[in-house]
Amino acid sequence: MRTTVGIIGAGPAGLLLARLLHNAGIDSVVLESRDRAYVEQRQRAGILEQGTVDVLREAGAAERMDREGIPHDGIELRFDKRRHRVDFPALTGGRSVMVYAQTEVCKDLIALQLAEGGPLLFEAEALAVEDAESEHPRIRYRHEGREDVLDCDYVVACDGFWGVGRKAVPADVSQVFERTYPFGWLGILADVAPSHDELVYARHDRGFALLSMRSPSVTRAYLQVPEGTDAADWSDEEIWDELDRRLETEDGWKLERGPITAKSVTPMRSYVHEPMRHGRLFLAGDAAHIVPPTGAKGLNLAVGDVVTFARALTHRQETGSTELLDAYSETCLRRVWQAERFSYAMTTMLHTAPDASPFDGRIQRALLDRITTSGAAETDLAEGYTGFPLD
Amino acid sequence: MRTTVGIIGAGPAGLLLARLLHNAGIDSVVLESRDRAYVEQRQRAGILEQGTVDVLREAGAAERMDREGIPHDGIELRFDKRRHRVDFPALTGGRSVMVYAQTEVCKDLIALQLAEGGPLLFEAEALAVEDAESEHPRIRYRHEGREDVLDCDYVVACDGFWGVGRKAVPADVSQVFERTYPFGWLGILADVAPSHDELVYARHDRGFALLSMRSPSVTRAYLQVPEGTDAADWSDEEIWDELDRRLETEDGWKLERGPITAKSVTPMRSYVHEPMRHGRLFLAGDAAHIVPPTGAKGLNLAVGDVVTFARALTHRQETGSTELLDAYSETCLRRVWQAERFSYAMTTMLHTAPDASPFDGRIQRALLDRITTSGAAETDLAEGYTGFPLD
Repeated sequence: MRTTVGIIGAGPAGLLLARLLHNAGIDSVVLESRDRAYVEQRQRAGILEQGTVDVLREAGAAERMDREGIPHDGIELRFDKRRHRVDFPALTGGRSVMVYAQTEVCKDLIALQLAEGGPLLFEAEALAVEDAESEHPRIRYRHEGREDVLDCDYVVACDGFWGVGRKAVPADVSQVFERTYPFGWLGILADVAPSHDELVYARHDRGFALLSMRSPSVTRAYLQVPEGTDAADWSDEEIWDELDRRLETEDGWKLERGPITAKSVTPMRSYVHEPMRHGRLFLAGDAAHIVPPTGAKGLNLAVGDVVTFARALTHRQETGSTELLDAYSETCLRRVWQAERFSYAMTTMLHTAPDASPFDGRIQRALLDRITTSGAAETDLAEGYTGFPLD
Repeated sequence: MRTTVGIIGAGPAGLLLARLLHNAGIDSVVLESRDRAYVEQRQRAGILEQGTVDVLREAGAAERMDREGIPHDGIELRFDKRRHRVDFPALTGGRSVMVYAQTEVCKDLIALQLAEGGPLLFEAEALAVEDAESEHPRIRYRHEGREDVLDCDYVVACDGFWGVGRKAVPADVSQVFERTYPFGWLGILADVAPSHDELVYARHDRGFALLSMRSPSVTRAYLQVPEGTDAADWSDEEIWDELDRRLETEDGWKLERGPITAKSVTPMRSYVHEPMRHGRLFLAGDAAHIVPPTGAKGLNLAVGDVVTFARALTHRQETGSTELLDAYSETCLRRVWQAERFSYAMTTMLHTAPDASPFDGRIQRALLDRITTSGAAETDLAEGYTGFPLD
C-alpha cells in the first residue's frame, strides 16, 4: 500500500490529522493497533481549549461537540476553604474552554473518517518506521495476521508515549527532558450531577482535588494519591469523604454523592522528546511529549502539533517550499514548552509533595493569594489555561 | 532608663522606625550593639522600591537620596544571549525603583537621629527582652561595660536574624518556615563605571549573574557560586571572565573591567518566623524574615514592617484602639509572604541548582520566554519587583 502521509495511531491527533489532510486534498492512511470499540471507550482528557474548538469547527468535526459540549467561561480555585473564580473571557478578551470528552472527539472523527476520509485500519499494529531519512519512509505493520508495508512520503507518529514512532529517531540526535512526580490522580466517574457548574481546582494540606464533569448528569473527580496507589484500595465512601475534606468551603457548599461507575489511577509525568522531527518522520502528541493532567493540556497540544504539520505540508504542496516542514519541530516545541511550564506550575502550586516543607505550603498559598488579588497574575493563568496560540 | 518604644538595632529598620516615631511625637530609644563606623560601612542591599522611596521622603530622610540616588525605570533580563528590558512605569502605572545603597540610608538616618531624635546608643548590646507579655516589657542591655535595663511600653526587635528579639518569643507559639539554597552569591565592588545603565539579571547554564551598580563610577556585580565558596578562591581575572561568559549577548555588548575593591560571599536563605508579634514585643525586618537577595526585597520588607508598626502605634495613641497593633503580625505577613514568594520565584527562575535536570533548565527558559512575550506575565514580575503595597 502507498500513501502521501502514513499516520500511526487513531487517537485524537492521528484522527484529526487525517481529517485536516483530507480537507486539504492530501491522502493519508491511519494505522491503529487497537480495535474500534477500545478507541471509542478509553477515558482521557475532557477540556478543549478555545483554539482546539476553533480547529474542530474549521475541520467540520464539531457538529456534535457544539450540541453536547459544555462551554466553560471559568474555573474555581479553592484553598483555605476560600473560593475564587477565574473569569476567562473577561481576562483574555473573550477566550474560554469547552468540556467535551476526548473519547467523544474520537468517536466523531472516526465516523467522519469512515464516511468521507481515506483508509483507517483498526487492529493494524505498526512494527517499525524505516528509512525516515529518505524521501520514501515506510511503516512496517501487522494487520489481520499478515505483515505488510505502507510506503509514504511522510510518516506522522501519533502513537503515544509507548509507540514505535519515537524509537525510529536515532538516539544520537535525540534529547529527552523528563520529570516524574511522587503522586498520581485517582479519578472517578459517578452517576450524579456535578455539584458545581465549572471545574474546581482545590489546594489542601491533604493533597490536591479536582471536581470536574463529563456531562450534566455525570461527575468526574480526582484526588491526589501517593505514587503506586491501587484504585481498588479506595472504597467509594472513602473517596467521597476525602473529596468532601479537600473541597470544603467556609460558605457551606455541598458535594453531592452518587454511584461511582469507574475508578482508576493516572501517574503524573512531564516528558519532552527533542527534536520532534527526523527526516520525513514527524512526532505528534504523546509520542513527543507528556504533561501532567493538571491544566488539561495533553489533548490540546496534540491538536496543535497536527495543525502545524497539516499547515506545513499544505504549504509545501502549494508553494513547493519545505520551510514550514523544516521548522515543524521548533514551531511545535515553543508551544510545547509553554504548556509544559504551565502544567508543571499548576501541578506544583496545587499538589502536596510527600517531602513538602511548611515553607512550600506557604509559598503555594502565597501564589494562590497573588492570583486572586493581582489582575496580572490572574490573566497569566487564564491565558495559559485557555491556551497558547498556534504560531 | 525608660521610653515608650525600645528599639533593638540601628539598621535601616530600627533607624527608620525611630524617625517615624519621632515625627509622630512618640519617644523611643535605639540600642545598637556595634559602633557607628561599622554600621555606616557594612555593605548590604541597594534597591529601594517605590514605596520605600515614598516613605523616606515623607519621613524627611530623602534629601541626599534624591540628590545622589539613581532612579531606575526597568531591569534587563538576559538569557540565551538575548536581552529583554522590563519597563516598570509602563507596566505598573508609573512605579519604579531607586538605586541607593542601604549603608547610605543608614548614614542619613543616623545623622538625622543624632541631630533631632531621641537617644541612639552605639555599642549597646541587647542581652534579653523580658516580660514581653506584660504591659511593661524591658530590654536588658550592656553599655560601656555596665548592664542596664530599658523599661518600655513596647519593644521592637530590629536586630536581625541573629538578634535576641526573636528568642524572646516562646517556642510553643513560634512557627518557623525555612528554605536554604545550595548556592550563594559572590559579590564584588569595582572601581569602574557600570557597563549598563540598569540592572542586568542573567540566567546561564553555568549559573546566575547580576550586574548592578553602587554609583555612576562603581560597579556592583554578583556571580552564583557553590555553597561554602571562599571569595578568596576567586582571582579578579576569574571573576571578570566568568561575568563575561554569563552576561554574553548576541549583539556584542561589552563588560568593562576595573579594579575590584571588595569581594564577599552571601549565603542564600528563605526564612519566616510566625507570628511577628508576641505581647508587646514586635519583630521587624530580618529579625522576622530573610529573603534571598534575588529581587532585592530584604530592606524594603523591613521598611514595610516598621511603617506598619508606626501607623499602628500612632492609631493607638490617637484613638485608644489597639486594633492595628493587634493586627500587626497578620498585616505584615501578607506582604512578607508575597515577597518570599517573589524572591523564591526569581531565585529558582535564574539560578542553576547543582542537581538541576535538563528539564529544569528548559522550564526556566520557557518561563523567561513567557515573561518576554506575555504582557500579563511581565506585568506580574514588574509589580513584584517595584513592590507589594502596604495595606
